[in-house]
Amino acid sequence: MEIDIRFIPVPPDPITLSDRIAIVIDVLRATSVIVKALSEGAAEIIPVAKVEEAFQKAKTFPRGTTLLGGERNSLRIEGFDLGNSPKEYIAERILGKRIILTTTNGTRAFDLVSSGKEVLAACFFNLRAIAKYCLSHKEDLLIFASGDEGNFSLEDVVCGGMLIEKMVEEKASIQLTDAAVAARILYEKFKGNLIEVFYTSRHGRDLVEKGFGEDLLYCAQTDISEVVPIFREGVIRI
Amino acid sequence: MEIDIRFIPVPPDPITLSDRIAIVIDVLRATSVIVKALSEGAAEIIPVAKVEEAFQKAKTFPRGTTLLGGERNSLRIEGFDLGNSPKEYIAERILGKRIILTTTNGTRAFDLVSSGKEVLAACFFNLRAIAKYCLSHKEDLLIFASGDEGNFSLEDVVCGGMLIEKMVEEKASIQLTDAAVAARILYEKFKGNLIEVFYTSRHGRDLVEKGFGEDLLYCAQTDISEVVPIFREGVIRI
Repeated sequence: MEIDIRFIPVPPDPITLSDRIAIVIDVLRATSVIVKALSEGAAEIIPVAKVEEAFQKAKTFPRGTTLLGGERNSLRIEGFDLGNSPKEYIAERILGKRIILTTTNGTRAFDLVSSGKEVLAACFFNLRAIAKYCLSHKEDLLIFASGDEGNFSLEDVVCGGMLIEKMVEEKASIQLTDAAVAARILYEKFKGNLIEVFYTSRHGRDLVEKGFGEDLLYCAQTDISEVVPIFREGVIRI
Repeated sequence: MEIDIRFIPVPPDPITLSDRIAIVIDVLRATSVIVKALSEGAAEIIPVAKVEEAFQKAKTFPRGTTLLGGERNSLRIEGFDLGNSPKEYIAERILGKRIILTTTNGTRAFDLVSSGKEVLAACFFNLRAIAKYCLSHKEDLLIFASGDEGNFSLEDVVCGGMLIEKMVEEKASIQLTDAAVAARILYEKFKGNLIEVFYTSRHGRDLVEKGFGEDLLYCAQTDISEVVPIFREGVIRI
């Protein structure tokens, strides 16, 4: 069993990927929203790339079953029901609903790894559950950091490093690529103070400037959810 | 002034790159060979992608002026004068000569960043000289890790992190991208024992298996050269 991690959101080799479980991470904030929404009872989440696509898609479902969520420039999109703060995704608003989600980095990442044997969504909330799932499936893994507009995003890689750490603690024989070794070292640097990674990262500081500082504290919570979101044929469900 | 680092050898945005100095790093072993060869008095180095191209290119120069160097699968290529161990590149063999070099990762990297405002070659040997050069030019930098057959290579990123550390020590106001912050953290992890990064990396372990263990010790030497190799119009000169 080998763990690799992709540091920037460029398409991985589809042949290699078809033998691996891909794990998409966009801590700030798409996969945090996805995990939170499914934990609170959303029926399913459909990630789409474009705002227009989200509106079109919503029309294909019965009225009242579907909510629109996501962001552009970190802000709620005009005409959408929900923004991109995980705190908004509470049972009172989303229980049993389908959510069509469009965000700058995270939703695109699912497309890039869609040829994976399985495609999961992870964030700090559900790493214990993801580690347990992957250890029981014994497949090679590709952790996929969604990045920051195509660039390296520190918080996603540190989250990936934490997943690697959890898995290696359980099973020391797991092989790590150079990238996975590096991600683990980066996690070690921040593990005493995870919130610090958000204040260090460009995207984290940008969110603070835009008034989403509380989201950083929220997204730094670890192991508060047992859900393992699985992306299949364009839809994310538990 | 900003420093960014590209962790895997995928083409950077050419528009951004045209405003930056690009610094190619392939510690094991292409840029170590390049720096060593120029330090020992080679006239110039021409990196080419393919073995056949190297033979063809050599024919266009007067007999006795040109040597062929490089590797495939880490080994000297049949019919070539030199392999890819920096130790081979000594004045007795290469003084005043042109070297046509083809390697698996490093020579390709120069092509990928050829649209940079300037393109330099760095390794542990000449980081002090590269830092001094870049600080005096005040341009934004893109450090380009040549990688390991398209994948992340730990030793190249740690070397990039050491360059970042040297520059920030001199000029604390330099802006670092998330990737540059990460590279600096990775360097910190290994700075007490640089050779350890080679024994940790996949490519380093592969070289040991193939009998090039001495090259690792050799390539871990820091600041033994003052040359700043510059790649222009397909040719690397001091």
